[in-house]
Amino acid sequence: MSGKTEKVIPKTLPGFMELLPSEQILFNQLTDAIRNSYERFGFLPLDTPVIESADVLLAKTGGETEKQIYSFSKGDTNLALRFDLTVPLAKYIALNQNNLAFPFRRYQIGKVYRGERPQQGRFREFYQCDIDIIGDGELNIMYDAEIPSVIYTTFKEMGFDDFTIRINNRKILNGLFASLNAGDKAPEVLRIIDKKDKIGDEAVVTELKTLGLTADSVDTIMNFISISGTSDEKLNLLKSMGIGSELFKTGVSELEQVIGGIKMFGVPDANFAIDLTIARGLDYYTGTVYETFLNQYRSIGSVCSGGRYDNLSEFYTDKKLPGVGISIGLTRLFYQLNKMNLLTPAKQSVSDVLVIPMTNDLAVCLSTATELRNQGVNAEVYLTDKKAKAKFGYADKLKIPFAVIIGDDEIKSGKFSLKNLTTGKQQLLTLDEIAAEVKPPQNA
Amino acid sequence: MSGKTEKVIPKTLPGFMELLPSEQILFNQLTDAIRNSYERFGFLPLDTPVIESADVLLAKTGGETEKQIYSFSKGDTNLALRFDLTVPLAKYIALNQNNLAFPFRRYQIGKVYRGERPQQGRFREFYQCDIDIIGDGELNIMYDAEIPSVIYTTFKEMGFDDFTIRINNRKILNGLFASLNAGDKAPEVLRIIDKKDKIGDEAVVTELKTLGLTADSVDTIMNFISISGTSDEKLNLLKSMGIGSELFKTGVSELEQVIGGIKMFGVPDANFAIDLTIARGLDYYTGTVYETFLNQYRSIGSVCSGGRYDNLSEFYTDKKLPGVGISIGLTRLFYQLNKMNLLTPAKQSVSDVLVIPMTNDLAVCLSTATELRNQGVNAEVYLTDKKAKAKFGYADKLKIPFAVIIGDDEIKSGKFSLKNLTTGKQQLLTLDEIAAEVKPPQNA
Repeated sequence: MSGKTEKVIPKTLPGFMELLPSEQILFNQLTDAIRNSYERFGFLPLDTPVIESADVLLAKTGGETEKQIYSFSKGDTNLALRFDLTVPLAKYIALNQNNLAFPFRRYQIGKVYRGERPQQGRFREFYQCDIDIIGDGELNIMYDAEIPSVIYTTFKEMGFDDFTIRINNRKILNGLFASLNAGDKAPEVLRIIDKKDKIGDEAVVTELKTLGLTADSVDTIMNFISISGTSDEKLNLLKSMGIGSELFKTGVSELEQVIGGIKMFGVPDANFAIDLTIARGLDYYTGTVYETFLNQYRSIGSVCSGGRYDNLSEFYTDKKLPGVGISIGLTRLFYQLNKMNLLTPAKQSVSDVLVIPMTNDLAVCLSTATELRNQGVNAEVYLTDKKAKAKFGYADKLKIPFAVIIGDDEIKSGKFSLKNLTTGKQQLLTLDEIAAEVKPPQNA
Repeated sequence: MSGKTEKVIPKTLPGFMELLPSEQILFNQLTDAIRNSYERFGFLPLDTPVIESADVLLAKTGGETEKQIYSFSKGDTNLALRFDLTVPLAKYIALNQNNLAFPFRRYQIGKVYRGERPQQGRFREFYQCDIDIIGDGELNIMYDAEIPSVIYTTFKEMGFDDFTIRINNRKILNGLFASLNAGDKAPEVLRIIDKKDKIGDEAVVTELKTLGLTADSVDTIMNFISISGTSDEKLNLLKSMGIGSELFKTGVSELEQVIGGIKMFGVPDANFAIDLTIARGLDYYTGTVYETFLNQYRSIGSVCSGGRYDNLSEFYTDKKLPGVGISIGLTRLFYQLNKMNLLTPAKQSVSDVLVIPMTNDLAVCLSTATELRNQGVNAEVYLTDKKAKAKFGYADKLKIPFAVIIGDDEIKSGKFSLKNLTTGKQQLLTLDEIAAEVKPPQNA
């Protein structure tokens, strides 16, 4: 088509992250770090469809989540976009149970969709990076101890040091509330004790009393949430509380095994802690629960959460499938870290080198680039007919660290000018010397 | 929730590929090969939303494609799922033109959606793996020569040797038809000559005549499509045809430059050829066009196609943005190759080693796995309390190549049994020796 075409205003929908290439390079480095770490632990890759049959996807949900779901029809089929990676996993295992080896360890890194009201840092399309370990009928508690080891390795691999994986066991909370005959008040109690740091102990006591709890019960709860010290000290204090509930005792015993396992996996003491106030929602997790915080940036909230559940696929199969897993909400995490300039990329460009022809004789320029690529160097050739300034401006804009400059003199001599575009230093080198010089460590 | 839950029958929608883990490992190796190759040439990563505003996505389309598009509303916004990666690129560049360096080289590997009637080997959700090079106002013809070098490197990286990149230039076809005053009959002529191998020259002549072409015109067309020989011979024959059309001459000149460039990039003669019958649709491409065939599996069709276009974003901006690009339809390609058992994975499992505890003392088992991981080995521990047979059965099902067996004797001695699960060979080794033994070449 020629001539003027009527224009449509180009736009990207609000709540949908679309990055500039320099940011995308950073984002991909995080994704790669997560994937490498998950594979280091032998998790199998999975890639389920973004679109599922609505009745399959909505087998369980209701309330707030359901309102956020993107659903629509095509022909006479009701469809919906996945809103997490757990429901598709539940479907997948129910469907493929006879072809899978259990415990089934899988990771999935993919986009999910929730039509939330868009606001700063909330996205309608976002990446979740999940691992889950699913047992056939039962799942050893030591797998609950492996998960923090994966979290630790993953966040180290992403470049973080100062983070804490906070661990609790839902049975402890549920057992405590049951022993106080306050099971029905659990959500309110949790909401109040969650504000402890903000409003102080006295206000917590006052609020707890308004729930109709006895003075003894309030005492027990205050006693419980004031438990402090090392993990071992906390476990001892829990045991000495004299709570009679079997559920509570099971929870403490599980937590003790998990803490012991985490140490055996070699997670440093500085990077994990028991946090008795963590609950992670009320009807899904049944045992161990995890939250992870970047200690210098607590305001971001938990950057990696999850826990143990009893029965993954109960809506699809009678087979009992207990599991434990975590999820990293990468899009939101990236948004926050990027906003605060906290991301330090290993590489800022894709290309290691830009080949710049200063001659019309392209043969050597093109074959040089090919040879550099054969040696594992990411290389591109600037083939647009522009002034030298524009050629170097291109390298600069893309933060390409090196330029190989090839003119007629270089072609005659068989040595090329390698210019370090950060320092400005220029050397006359053979092709092999250039390859050795520009190859980044991770490609070496 | 407890007790019996009403079940929903788990299913995955027809036309949506969902792989078993062993297949997904294969699929990801292909994706990785493509990504590595694209980055080797300095293409920048891009990740655009799956959902776009319907008016943005449908600015250009009509007819058959539009019917296949998944579109729906959320609130008062009309949305649609992307059906290719080109329209989102056109939008992206129009939106971000002031922040991009030109020529803008990007790759994108992502899922696209088309509600086609499902049939064997056709998918409604499928991966496209695209590269494009977009110029600001103009784009040097040598970039058209770079694309086959990328295709060559990519398919080699995926493990193929016997493939041919077939190249043509739309200006040659358009110029030829114009010189015969048969521009309006181009689609029919192309359809007929495409059947040449099947129906033979004589039938082609007969069918061309029914279009109302003169005998001279039919002669010229038959002469044109019978051009054979090496690339250079074909170019010489084209030049000697005496076609007066300037468009035809420009096309031949461009094709000659592209062929010359491809050689300079070092693509072997065996892997590319001029094919004068390739057109790639009629209204999009304007110059160089590419198709790629696996020579032993021609029935699959072209596995990588693309070409040069004049103006990428004309529906969104007045800025002229010529470009050249290709796309690999990976989902369909994988489906075909997998069906024919043609995929030979570098690694069949994620884990390099399964640590098998034969003791209740887990400390050494867990720390051994952690240490192996620190040395770059993908390792998992079998923590389920089962008989030895079940433990090895798990490794077998996942095709994990090695097992490290740790019992009380091993813990005492500090040496562990490494069993090669393919050969059955078992050795007593230190942890460092084990790491060296099991590390796959690509992790080394």
